Amino acid sequence: MQSCAKSWGILFAKCVNPHAPCRHIHGKSRIFGKQQNRILTLNNACVTVRGLRTSAVYAASRQIDRILPRHDDFAERHIGPGERDKREMLDVLGLESIAQLIEDTVPESIRIQRSMKMDDPLCENEVLERLQKIASKNKVWRSYIGMGYYNCSVPPVIQRNLLENSGWVTQYTPYQPEVAQGRLESLLNYQTMICDITGMAVANASLLDEATAAAEAMQLCHSYIGVKTMLKLPHEMDFSGKDVSGVLFQYPDTDGRVEDLTALVDRAHKGGALACCATDLLALCVLRPPGEFGVDIALGSSQRFGVPLCYGGPHAAFFSVKENLVRMMPGRMVGVTRDAAGKEVYRLALQTREQHIRRDKATSNICTAQALLANMAAMFGVYHGPQGLKHIAERTHHAALILAEGLKRAGHRLHSEMFFDTLKVGCSVAAKDILARAVQREINLRVYGEGVLGVSLDETVKERDLDDLLWVFGCESSAELIAEKMGDRVKGIMGSPFKRTSKYLTHAVFNSYHSETNIVRYMKRLENKDISLVHSMIPLPITWNEFANLHPFCPLDQAEGYQQLFRQLEKDLCEVTGYDKISFQPNSGAQGEYAGLAAIKAYLNSKGDAHRTVCLIPKSAHGTNPASAQMAGMKVQVVEVDKDGNIDMANLKALVDKHKANLAAMMITYPSTFGVFEESIDDVCNLIHQNGGQVYLDGANMNAQMMGAKGLVHATEVAILNANYMAKRLESHYKILFKGFCAHEFILDVRPFKKTANIEAVDVAKRLQDYGTLMIEPTESEDKAEMDRFCDALMGIRQEIADIEEGRMDARVNPLKMAPHSLASITSSTWDRPYSREYAAFPLPFVRPETKFWPSISRIDDIYGDQHLVCTCPPMDVYESPYEEKRASS
Amino acid sequence: MQSCAKSWGILFAKCVNPHAPCRHIHGKSRIFGKQQNRILTLNNACVTVRGLRTSAVYAASRQIDRILPRHDDFAERHIGPGERDKREMLDVLGLESIAQLIEDTVPESIRIQRSMKMDDPLCENEVLERLQKIASKNKVWRSYIGMGYYNCSVPPVIQRNLLENSGWVTQYTPYQPEVAQGRLESLLNYQTMICDITGMAVANASLLDEATAAAEAMQLCHSYIGVKTMLKLPHEMDFSGKDVSGVLFQYPDTDGRVEDLTALVDRAHKGGALACCATDLLALCVLRPPGEFGVDIALGSSQRFGVPLCYGGPHAAFFSVKENLVRMMPGRMVGVTRDAAGKEVYRLALQTREQHIRRDKATSNICTAQALLANMAAMFGVYHGPQGLKHIAERTHHAALILAEGLKRAGHRLHSEMFFDTLKVGCSVAAKDILARAVQREINLRVYGEGVLGVSLDETVKERDLDDLLWVFGCESSAELIAEKMGDRVKGIMGSPFKRTSKYLTHAVFNSYHSETNIVRYMKRLENKDISLVHSMIPLPITWNEFANLHPFCPLDQAEGYQQLFRQLEKDLCEVTGYDKISFQPNSGAQGEYAGLAAIKAYLNSKGDAHRTVCLIPKSAHGTNPASAQMAGMKVQVVEVDKDGNIDMANLKALVDKHKANLAAMMITYPSTFGVFEESIDDVCNLIHQNGGQVYLDGANMNAQMMGAKGLVHATEVAILNANYMAKRLESHYKILFKGFCAHEFILDVRPFKKTANIEAVDVAKRLQDYGTLMIEPTESEDKAEMDRFCDALMGIRQEIADIEEGRMDARVNPLKMAPHSLASITSSTWDRPYSREYAAFPLPFVRPETKFWPSISRIDDIYGDQHLVCTCPPMDVYESPYEEKRASS
Repeated sequence: MQSCAKSWGILFAKCVNPHAPCRHIHGKSRIFGKQQNRILTLNNACVTVRGLRTSAVYAASRQIDRILPRHDDFAERHIGPGERDKREMLDVLGLESIAQLIEDTVPESIRIQRSMKMDDPLCENEVLERLQKIASKNKVWRSYIGMGYYNCSVPPVIQRNLLENSGWVTQYTPYQPEVAQGRLESLLNYQTMICDITGMAVANASLLDEATAAAEAMQLCHSYIGVKTMLKLPHEMDFSGKDVSGVLFQYPDTDGRVEDLTALVDRAHKGGALACCATDLLALCVLRPPGEFGVDIALGSSQRFGVPLCYGGPHAAFFSVKENLVRMMPGRMVGVTRDAAGKEVYRLALQTREQHIRRDKATSNICTAQALLANMAAMFGVYHGPQGLKHIAERTHHAALILAEGLKRAGHRLHSEMFFDTLKVGCSVAAKDILARAVQREINLRVYGEGVLGVSLDETVKERDLDDLLWVFGCESSAELIAEKMGDRVKGIMGSPFKRTSKYLTHAVFNSYHSETNIVRYMKRLENKDISLVHSMIPLPITWNEFANLHPFCPLDQAEGYQQLFRQLEKDLCEVTGYDKISFQPNSGAQGEYAGLAAIKAYLNSKGDAHRTVCLIPKSAHGTNPASAQMAGMKVQVVEVDKDGNIDMANLKALVDKHKANLAAMMITYPSTFGVFEESIDDVCNLIHQNGGQVYLDGANMNAQMMGAKGLVHATEVAILNANYMAKRLESHYKILFKGFCAHEFILDVRPFKKTANIEAVDVAKRLQDYGTLMIEPTESEDKAEMDRFCDALMGIRQEIADIEEGRMDARVNPLKMAPHSLASITSSTWDRPYSREYAAFPLPFVRPETKFWPSISRIDDIYGDQHLVCTCPPMDVYESPYEEKRASS
Repeated sequence: MQSCAKSWGILFAKCVNPHAPCRHIHGKSRIFGKQQNRILTLNNACVTVRGLRTSAVYAASRQIDRILPRHDDFAERHIGPGERDKREMLDVLGLESIAQLIEDTVPESIRIQRSMKMDDPLCENEVLERLQKIASKNKVWRSYIGMGYYNCSVPPVIQRNLLENSGWVTQYTPYQPEVAQGRLESLLNYQTMICDITGMAVANASLLDEATAAAEAMQLCHSYIGVKTMLKLPHEMDFSGKDVSGVLFQYPDTDGRVEDLTALVDRAHKGGALACCATDLLALCVLRPPGEFGVDIALGSSQRFGVPLCYGGPHAAFFSVKENLVRMMPGRMVGVTRDAAGKEVYRLALQTREQHIRRDKATSNICTAQALLANMAAMFGVYHGPQGLKHIAERTHHAALILAEGLKRAGHRLHSEMFFDTLKVGCSVAAKDILARAVQREINLRVYGEGVLGVSLDETVKERDLDDLLWVFGCESSAELIAEKMGDRVKGIMGSPFKRTSKYLTHAVFNSYHSETNIVRYMKRLENKDISLVHSMIPLPITWNEFANLHPFCPLDQAEGYQQLFRQLEKDLCEVTGYDKISFQPNSGAQGEYAGLAAIKAYLNSKGDAHRTVCLIPKSAHGTNPASAQMAGMKVQVVEVDKDGNIDMANLKALVDKHKANLAAMMITYPSTFGVFEESIDDVCNLIHQNGGQVYLDGANMNAQMMGAKGLVHATEVAILNANYMAKRLESHYKILFKGFCAHEFILDVRPFKKTANIEAVDVAKRLQDYGTLMIEPTESEDKAEMDRFCDALMGIRQEIADIEEGRMDARVNPLKMAPHSLASITSSTWDRPYSREYAAFPLPFVRPETKFWPSISRIDDIYGDQHLVCTCPPMDVYESPYEEKRASS
């Protein structure tokens, strides 16, 4: 593939910006290190905070520690079961102590004996205090650097009720759409907004970041791995050889230029190539959108729609395509379908494309949507509406026009006369003098070198800011005076052929919630439809000014707070993992895998081992592994596991023997997704190393491994105890795969019920919604009562299955097949089921009307939705009440 | 009455602390000013913020204002109806413009013509930015001043999910217990906690502040107004004359001393006096509680249970009494009763004592509970539990013991050997040198003068803080070394007869939610039972460190941010009200009334008019007015109103004539609670003034008056429009009292339905819960759709009443009499009503199963509750499910 956008290198440079090693400090984070030729990723960002938080019941050696003990023990607060709980659970397991359990669960060979060097534990308020001190080391200057990151006004009403609200901030993936209609509706709003603004037919529910979106666009063009990239100017492009699969350009480009790319798109199409356009949502509110000049894929960042800069991330990328490309689109997509009651409802569409279904056939590992941040951007659109967005876009553009006029008066030269918010300026005086004045006013500009500077404006720019910028550039006039004399030049884009004429965001949802009262109620209404973990741990320091408002490319000395966090995190992670160096660069699990394998590949290539391309992956590995291996250009070979979930060593040895000449790597998820710590891990590593390969360790489940500082140890012990307790309680009711003590999770085998009662896993999962509990991985934060409720629910369900098996319950119409039961169905006058309303809705005493969480719809129909694909907001009549008629007739 | 506590003067001094003129900046606030002999109170704290927020659609005179307009208009966001809404509403009213409406509503004589001098409007983000700058002018030193205010660790999990959560922060008073079971349960927890810790039988749901609680205690002792207060030391007390109604003392006292007050209590009782004890909840976790040595009333502040200092307030005061005093207890009290389904449920108990029922017979105007802050304190207790609280108390006490030991070693003298957390220190060196060192370490101490200093420690004190304090006092040893050598002296209270031996907080609710997961879920469960306004306006700056952690008695130069806020607020309020001076001192509506009348009384007395004691109060006045007048020692005379709700001038003139010799004041609520702006207001004022009286204006409804800066004007106009639109829609269905255009609210007359259908106001109110709407005062923030829903609900209810009137619906079993319908009743298999489930629960199309707010219980039985008074948490079996049996039998 060829790529042309002359500015594209800059965009990609975001990924290798040395100033922002961790662009994702607050969400998931990935590390990879190298030691003994091993690479490890770790799917848990809380590590450092937990490190700071950790505490322990240590024997105080000083009198003052005894009489003035720690004020509060955050680690203990985070752990669900109390002492009595733990005792009772151990009794059920027939064990004396947690130590005995660990002995039986974690292979001795992998337990470390030394204690870890980590900071003393702090209580939660101390953590916040320390974070405040760290935050104060960041300096929040006004940054007009642009390059994909813009200041924006985060509407406080959204920050507070969405970003800082534990009801929205949840790790839960909406695989169970019946209890996730709220965020699905919001993501559908996001998709609708993206389609409208870009002028494209379909959009997904966001991707990890803009760079990933760009890479995915190129992959989509080429449909396989190993694309060749070329950078050219548009007029240099040559498609005549029909050997170009796609072209990727920016509009407006990184220098701010707005140009007519219609001809380029036409040429690309004639040459059989697809046209991909990286673009800017705010600009498109006044600018002709890419969908109107033939672009096939439009993508970009939705950060400036109300998401704080946060030193570079996380931010949601948008990705939208023409109708004909919809089934090739990467990432998650929300679609409309109907439920069992025939109501139009939402769910994740086209899941069959995804790696968790296709597994080793998947070619994209990007399952990550930035749901929370996409939802923030969607609400920004809902709150401002089309008029509001246009107002903001025009205002931003006007600010740029005034500044441009002033700069020209001061003798500077603009690189382009047609721009939206960004000016590339050839300076008429020494750039260093301008920069010195910028420092005086605490302003950051983009520095191109050789007398060229860049200024990107945004919605936060006020008259005072313009006056400062004019002063910085040596213009003697004020914004007010310049504006006074501009006349027709004030029109800019609005007076040019680039002006947008088409409407957008015409749907009622973008025209109904512009007052605070209304948007809060709307967000609350959506929130209340969703099961949430409601696990608010600590106030989110990400919304503190000093963390939120730092541009990723600001000078290092303005980001000393962040640097300190990175250093501390690196130190702790090295200590926990036993590795030497950490990169914080990949900012999602999937990216971490890809980066790890790319590093292995590069290492092998550098040794002249480019022929080594075989990657061994056990069946017990994490679901994304095979796709990542394929993306890194490796060939996947599946390794068998034995009945206990351990790697089948005989099979492994045979495969290594067969592929040893071309062996590149082995990927291991440890502990495995079957919840097993494999004692043979050392042997496996040695075998691979001896045969010239590298071992890649996926730490997604590593939470259950971290055998270090005391608080971490304790949390881990409890997580293991919890899992084993539940397995024990359930083992006489269900078949549990891979017996023996488990690590952090276990698998119930429900396959036999298909034959005996026509019940499948999905029926059990849906029925669990009626019981109001979805938990399956207990972790350390659940207490015994919650686990008991979950076990009771599963045992209740087992009894229901037995009722079917033994003919006491209808095999077709029963609470499992009919699950979940929505409020609408339970409260209806019509009830013709062979079981009672109470049996359906309140199957156990702890499921009570006043506290039950109700699925807002009946069971989803996935097939219908995929056959009738609708991925934007449905017409308004869907929102009307099903009860309108009934009142009239009652 | 005599009072003895030698330290009490200090406690009362909090009320007149000149450094903290506004101790209630974030809740309701009251001002009273004087101009033309008028006093005004104002029941709305948002004034200054609204002032900052206000904006307007002003004709921009500068080109730059046209092309670079305001970024976002907060005032518009706060206003519900959009332009189209407003047009449609005016059409319904048959009006051309809002101006015409105002012309018809607000008497010309009271409209001001000039424009107001207030700061330019700001958008919301600018407000926050400005507040941040203001906040940074406050300096957060470590304050060990004590005197009723202590640093505490606010558990972030509570701060975030309760204090900062709009679902909990609501003005809504739980008069409708069916939709407020969550906060009622939490307040019941508070009462239980207070009873347990103080050892008393009953507690109320909090009072305004500690000073108010103390005053109420003395009033309770004396049972009438005009108490004589004497300050004496305990041994000086003489009860032998049987002329003492009560004694009030502190335990521990303000100097930290813990002494045995049993003999004093006994002597008081023998002399026929009641014993009142101001005390400290944390101290009582290790100290013998007042309930165990015969105290009749125990009171104090619950601030240090997890509520930030906030420069002095708001904080909840607790108030608890012996069993025999329960029906004399002031304030709100939550009690247990049963609902129509026989379930044990919660509601406000003994409401017949309250001023809104007894009106001119009430002698206490204290209806204010600090519900939010009481709930924070209650959750603090729930989260820590008895062990946790004891741990915190011991830790705090130990810190004081170590410090005391160090001070003694450095040669200082302690005023008491038995203390909990507070030391009064006679310095062995010059106090000014100690204070100079304190300044170096940014520490505030209490200064008694004459070489005496005070130090009050708290739960936040760490070893490092002790080391700093020891250094400040010139002790050369460290806390560690002192602790090492203390031996048995480390026991303090725990080794003395003062040690608490009785248990507290034994109820399951205080022993179940100590992990984060559990407490968050518990808070969420309660929150979800309550209708909330969900009107989150702006992030709460009160939780910012610089506002939250300032001690009210810290030196003025550490509180410059607060001072700036006060000055700005004073300026704006004077501008809005036309008064000259403002006092921010009274920090609740009720206190404002009392303070205003007390000022009038003092003014009259100073003129030799002490005989003037008659206070005229129209029927249209605010409900608290009569009680306040009585408390201020005035005699209430009720003034009639005419059929339009205006003051009956003939009646007024007659009353003035009759009482002119003794006329003290007239209280007017303006606009009145009937929603009327009275054109005669000027005449009324002149009449009173001419007869030697003062006019007190209650501005509780003043929101609808403020005719100043453009944004305020617009908000006011819309509020008036909204009210009139609703009145218009409803006027053909209901009789509306006081016809014509109304101000901000209006009254529907449902009394006729008692005869025609046996339906009373309470039935309509309960039935409105089924419709999911409680609104009756629309204000400016509701949009037309919401008002239409409310009107539709009322019209639907009117139709239901007609169905009863005309025999289509049973007069006994109908949706109104059976309202509200809980989920439990609607989902039950048993349904024998002569109307359908849908009719009961979804009476109109907008009431839908997936969004409906459900009353968590059936209709409350108030009488049963008052007859069987239970004001602490009921036994656990109440919490069990009513469905336990059904599953077994289904």
